[in-house]
Amino acid sequence: MPRLPTLRVTGRAEKLCRQLNEKFLTDTLLVFSPENVRWLIGFTGSAGTLVVRSHEMIFVTDGRYTEQAHIQAKSSAVEIDVREARSSADHLEVLAKILSSGSSCGFDPSEVTVEKFEIYQQAFATKLVPAPGLVKQLRRIKSDAEIARIESAAAAADRALADVESMLTDGVAERDIRDELEYLMRRHGADGPSYETIVATGPNGARPHHRPTSDRIVDGHSVVIDVGALVDGYHSDMTRTYLIGEVNSELADIHQTVCEAQQLGLAKIAPGVLCSDVDQVCRQYITECGYGPEFVHGTGHGVGLQIHELPWIRKDFNEPLQVGEVVTVEPGVYRGGLGGVRIEDLVLVTPTGYRILTQSQKDHLCLQSPRTT
Amino acid sequence: MPRLPTLRVTGRAEKLCRQLNEKFLTDTLLVFSPENVRWLIGFTGSAGTLVVRSHEMIFVTDGRYTEQAHIQAKSSAVEIDVREARSSADHLEVLAKILSSGSSCGFDPSEVTVEKFEIYQQAFATKLVPAPGLVKQLRRIKSDAEIARIESAAAAADRALADVESMLTDGVAERDIRDELEYLMRRHGADGPSYETIVATGPNGARPHHRPTSDRIVDGHSVVIDVGALVDGYHSDMTRTYLIGEVNSELADIHQTVCEAQQLGLAKIAPGVLCSDVDQVCRQYITECGYGPEFVHGTGHGVGLQIHELPWIRKDFNEPLQVGEVVTVEPGVYRGGLGGVRIEDLVLVTPTGYRILTQSQKDHLCLQSPRTT
Repeated sequence: MPRLPTLRVTGRAEKLCRQLNEKFLTDTLLVFSPENVRWLIGFTGSAGTLVVRSHEMIFVTDGRYTEQAHIQAKSSAVEIDVREARSSADHLEVLAKILSSGSSCGFDPSEVTVEKFEIYQQAFATKLVPAPGLVKQLRRIKSDAEIARIESAAAAADRALADVESMLTDGVAERDIRDELEYLMRRHGADGPSYETIVATGPNGARPHHRPTSDRIVDGHSVVIDVGALVDGYHSDMTRTYLIGEVNSELADIHQTVCEAQQLGLAKIAPGVLCSDVDQVCRQYITECGYGPEFVHGTGHGVGLQIHELPWIRKDFNEPLQVGEVVTVEPGVYRGGLGGVRIEDLVLVTPTGYRILTQSQKDHLCLQSPRTT
Repeated sequence: MPRLPTLRVTGRAEKLCRQLNEKFLTDTLLVFSPENVRWLIGFTGSAGTLVVRSHEMIFVTDGRYTEQAHIQAKSSAVEIDVREARSSADHLEVLAKILSSGSSCGFDPSEVTVEKFEIYQQAFATKLVPAPGLVKQLRRIKSDAEIARIESAAAAADRALADVESMLTDGVAERDIRDELEYLMRRHGADGPSYETIVATGPNGARPHHRPTSDRIVDGHSVVIDVGALVDGYHSDMTRTYLIGEVNSELADIHQTVCEAQQLGLAKIAPGVLCSDVDQVCRQYITECGYGPEFVHGTGHGVGLQIHELPWIRKDFNEPLQVGEVVTVEPGVYRGGLGGVRIEDLVLVTPTGYRILTQSQKDHLCLQSPRTT
């Protein structure tokens, strides 16, 4: 694996503070989500609360993570003050003390449960004010170092999939293909799988999120493989659907339809294009081919520190794509009793259109014999 | 792997409805958490909302999961009515219609974010009433079929760890050990790792939740291996700490202290014993040996459909252990610059005390040469 460029958090907290002030008229934000904390200060652990202010940043964590926080937590705005809490009661007390000086404090309502909110509001003198989505919105545009990680994750999945293609024959179990893929992604430099790898053969493919079983490939099946890798916290996401041996004409037609719809979706990707329009072009084509009701999910989603993040490529998300966003294009058709077909690529939105990050072949998806027509 | 007994959800919804009525004076509960849904009706997917009432149970999911819900969702109380929503707006509308007949509706405030709560409360005519922890509390006591799964997961991790012990020598990288462990757990019947496997050598061991790197074992290191498997949705959890070659007397003393503290903790496990007392016995011993401030986490936690669930074995959790609970006992000592030691077993609380589910050896944890004293 090529050496990855250093991830820098330069300017992130500053931008956040500006938006916080302008949009929500407060100077303090509490950040709870591990991904948002990681994006802001580079801390990769799973527990801790970050207090962001223009003149100070305090990270409260527990003894499992104090050493790690001292090493990792960085910001270009101010030095990060790491404080250790010895219990959840202590954690609350430390936060209450920090917040005692401000009159209001923002939080992202998607990061806090109703239970935690009640506990916090009771413990803090300051008023908690919903400030939705600030960090998540900033995370949409990926830096070059972030893109390099996603690309590297995509390459690990590509190489693993190329390695297992020879396994895709009659009699091989879904689980064994999954196990090989996940092992091989690591051999190719990934830290692990990005999500539960899907291998769905025959009728199992009708469930888009099927979990691999001991069911085996049978000649005439479609095999849906949805596989991604994780590199330094960044995810990749890709799906290919193979037709094994002689398949019936219906399955072949569905396969061709989805391939074509996916090409249309990809061709639509460009800065300024509405996410809903990318969904629309795939959905309309599949509907025209007669499979509309069987395309049961959105066309795609953003990918980064989370496998599903902004933006959403679906009909009710009308925001334009922006340069630097990384999104999937993954139409699918699912027919109970027969199987499913999904084709998915991960693409970077560029000034002139898009660049595909997942390179696995799509031209020769009929293994063993040509598709019947 | 031996054939696992069938998981049954018999009586669960009925018990829940009784408690809901008695404690919260409402007859409807909305269940959002996938683990709680799975425990109540056996559905293993990751999306959907369950409406529980004594006379009806309705599961609202989306097109990715409809077929699966029809196959899996079961209850001994009533037949489950599966409804498909085509979008999140539609999902909300379907729920609003179902709830229009009731005057109030319970929900677990730990399952719902502030953002979602606002959306739900705006959409529903019925008042949402916090009904904390009902299903989570019921999940504490494991059925025989659940125990069989946890035991089977523990056995897969035991066998994988036994297979890799010969790898634990000077020059081997943390990541390679992790990769082998996770691959081997699956070969031994697991569906996958239960959590991110920890392999922490030398100073890395001072971080309890260290993620494996390309750092290599060096003679004189401790190596912390924290590994669990997943079988049919159920987790296992285990830690062993190996001393490699000649270690200094401090590390050897820490190792012995933690081993002894863990034995004391295990010996304390019995129904009726307060969870806080199990923590206390480990903490007191480690403190007497002079390492109190370096035992930076709780002594243990429940394990089941989640890797961390009720009960909590820590000083601020005063509830008694009950027969059928499955908990970890995992004291540890962490010293910056030197390393860490953690020893962890998973145990079932039995009428007469406990039964250890993780069987990996603890007697010969000094590999290659005897521990210096």
